[in-house]
Amino acid sequence: MQAVVISIGDELVLGQTVDTNAAWLSSQLASYGVSTKWQLTVADDREEIQDAITEAAHDAELVIVTGGLGPTEDDLTRFALADALECELVLFENALDHLTSWFEQRGRKMAEANRVQAMLPGKSRMISNTVGTAPGIEASIGDHQIFVFPGVPDEMRVMFKRSIVPLLRDERNATSKRVILARKVNTFGEGESRVAELLGSLADRDRNPLVGTTVSDGIVAVRIRSESTDTEEAEEALNATTRAVEDALGELVFGWDGTTLAEATGQMLKTQCETVATAESCTGGLVGKMLTDTSGSSDYYQGGWVTYSNEMKCEALGVEIGMIEKHGAVSEEVAMAMAEGARTKSGAAFALSLTGIAGPAGGTEEKPVGTVWIGLSESGYSPTAARHVFGGNREMVRLRASLTALDMLRVRLLAKTEVI
Amino acid sequence: MQAVVISIGDELVLGQTVDTNAAWLSSQLASYGVSTKWQLTVADDREEIQDAITEAAHDAELVIVTGGLGPTEDDLTRFALADALECELVLFENALDHLTSWFEQRGRKMAEANRVQAMLPGKSRMISNTVGTAPGIEASIGDHQIFVFPGVPDEMRVMFKRSIVPLLRDERNATSKRVILARKVNTFGEGESRVAELLGSLADRDRNPLVGTTVSDGIVAVRIRSESTDTEEAEEALNATTRAVEDALGELVFGWDGTTLAEATGQMLKTQCETVATAESCTGGLVGKMLTDTSGSSDYYQGGWVTYSNEMKCEALGVEIGMIEKHGAVSEEVAMAMAEGARTKSGAAFALSLTGIAGPAGGTEEKPVGTVWIGLSESGYSPTAARHVFGGNREMVRLRASLTALDMLRVRLLAKTEVI
Repeated sequence: MQAVVISIGDELVLGQTVDTNAAWLSSQLASYGVSTKWQLTVADDREEIQDAITEAAHDAELVIVTGGLGPTEDDLTRFALADALECELVLFENALDHLTSWFEQRGRKMAEANRVQAMLPGKSRMISNTVGTAPGIEASIGDHQIFVFPGVPDEMRVMFKRSIVPLLRDERNATSKRVILARKVNTFGEGESRVAELLGSLADRDRNPLVGTTVSDGIVAVRIRSESTDTEEAEEALNATTRAVEDALGELVFGWDGTTLAEATGQMLKTQCETVATAESCTGGLVGKMLTDTSGSSDYYQGGWVTYSNEMKCEALGVEIGMIEKHGAVSEEVAMAMAEGARTKSGAAFALSLTGIAGPAGGTEEKPVGTVWIGLSESGYSPTAARHVFGGNREMVRLRASLTALDMLRVRLLAKTEVI
Repeated sequence: MQAVVISIGDELVLGQTVDTNAAWLSSQLASYGVSTKWQLTVADDREEIQDAITEAAHDAELVIVTGGLGPTEDDLTRFALADALECELVLFENALDHLTSWFEQRGRKMAEANRVQAMLPGKSRMISNTVGTAPGIEASIGDHQIFVFPGVPDEMRVMFKRSIVPLLRDERNATSKRVILARKVNTFGEGESRVAELLGSLADRDRNPLVGTTVSDGIVAVRIRSESTDTEEAEEALNATTRAVEDALGELVFGWDGTTLAEATGQMLKTQCETVATAESCTGGLVGKMLTDTSGSSDYYQGGWVTYSNEMKCEALGVEIGMIEKHGAVSEEVAMAMAEGARTKSGAAFALSLTGIAGPAGGTEEKPVGTVWIGLSESGYSPTAARHVFGGNREMVRLRASLTALDMLRVRLLAKTEVI
């Protein structure tokens, strides 16, 4: 089975927004052995959308369209789909009921404009939206299937999983076509070229499973792609290559697929029944935010301080003003005192601290932009701190500093398991 | 003039990589009045690429292709372009010289595989690569121009600026063709359909400047797109429509283009010489992170507390444990006490607090997932708090709660300017 993915929106062809839906959909399809023949982006233009749908339905058995289902006048996908199906839009009562109750549950009155979201092509079926207002649409041209989802990633993803995944499972069971299984092995602590060096011949281009690296948001991921005509065979090869990659990279590896560094670190804290607190200056709360991205993080995260001003460092964490005056707020001494203060005041077993110059302003020759001291305090041990100079803009410096802090704790926790 | 943008790569149609080149190119083209008719992504497949180039050159005067110019076996764009031009690849001596010296300068020996990067279609011209190894290629089909750049964003961008921008400037000067100017007016506080209702006939599809709405990361943006044959006229129309949009939406508007809600709120604090502190529970530091995304935020942000556990709420902010036991941590009383504690302890003029259930676990019938109490304390006034129930997953609940907190402060600051 082949698919075509169509993304719709003026903001996309004007370059105001980067489309992430097409990549997400194609990666999901690939995991079920369905390859994407092409991805197309067109404007909110009824005729262009109709042409795209017609051509796609001619080219591929599965067509997925995202965007243009909103309640406003520039949302034209439902009209274009009706044109492609050669039918009229009709009011779907179940869609209207859903819309009305969606607004009622939120104590809001439905705007008249939203009514159009219950209008679907007569020859189509509604796909419920459990997250937002716009229902999705399912239709066929010949025996080729067309699915239309809202452009909002969360709504689109839920609908994909509910409406297309079951089809793909059936398809895979019925035929014995190519299976592509993929896995990401996430690493932190070395750059992409060093990771590639450590992988050695595992990264040869003619290898199956194929192994490659990508860098995204400060994380070097090793992508493994296993292809076979047999699911079991593909799985076994994927697992064997994963083990080989993990052996080659050792403690750089912190998790698979969607696992974040904060999640991996949190999971280790949970396993070891330990807790952590944070004291952040230049990162402004980002480490706390990352640790609490995961539900259940209250098991190991006590909380923290964002001590952006020097007064806050002193009054909230007990750092001595004399120390700041002598060494500066961005110093080993202050980083250690912040970590120590956060740990003792919170009662946590560990505390991480960050103090640095995220830029673009504030750098000096001695302490250039990107300089960040990261401190770690552990109950029963003297606090430690390490100096880093991170490259990139403010956002990258803050991201890399936060990840490095989390990794400092992860490596410490790893050492403790190894001793045991 | 219209353009088509083609992105090439297995990693793109497999969804392993999100393509940012197409959006960047389209936004650049739009700023010179060139609209992108469509964007297409195809695999590293010689025939598919050839078909795409042929169709694009039929549809648009300007075709930009990125990717597939590397030295490895899956880089097939140069072959496909030769097919589309109906000619053979030949060795370009100047391209080979560039390649050889590029490696020499870096003290490395050129791999034999790189030699193919100096092979270009006979009917084409080379575009020098000042950043990497692969030269770009320029060709024509009839009087429609085709540019092929490497997929590496840095290399592609430099080549675009050196080879296409001068053409676009000439084109704009020589003829008095269309100029497209765009602006985003960012709003917060109402859903997309309510914003559309307020815009009324401003959002008519046959209007110029064209006005549309998009929702992204919890922000409803009003996109204005002004098109004219004259730059000054386009600018005047853009400004007039912007004023009309701002009049229609009133205090929902917080800024233009890339301005974030945190930036807008911070700027107001700065103008009014006020400061703010934060006390976050369910958002774990996200509000602090947002406020400190901007350099110079220390002028108005003192810092804050992430009181994830009840003990932290009591010990760090002075919330009474009896209050938590009586009303629960997610309550009006606790939200107000957190804000009051953060303000008095930090010495800031304002403090924001958030306590809620981000989910997916932890909801009850009375306090479902998504319930967040947001508190605001202001020096000289009694604290206030408002209850919200946000939809979506954990990430969305936390994002929306953080934005709503910032907006609560923004609206308060706005009221103060109006009184003055």
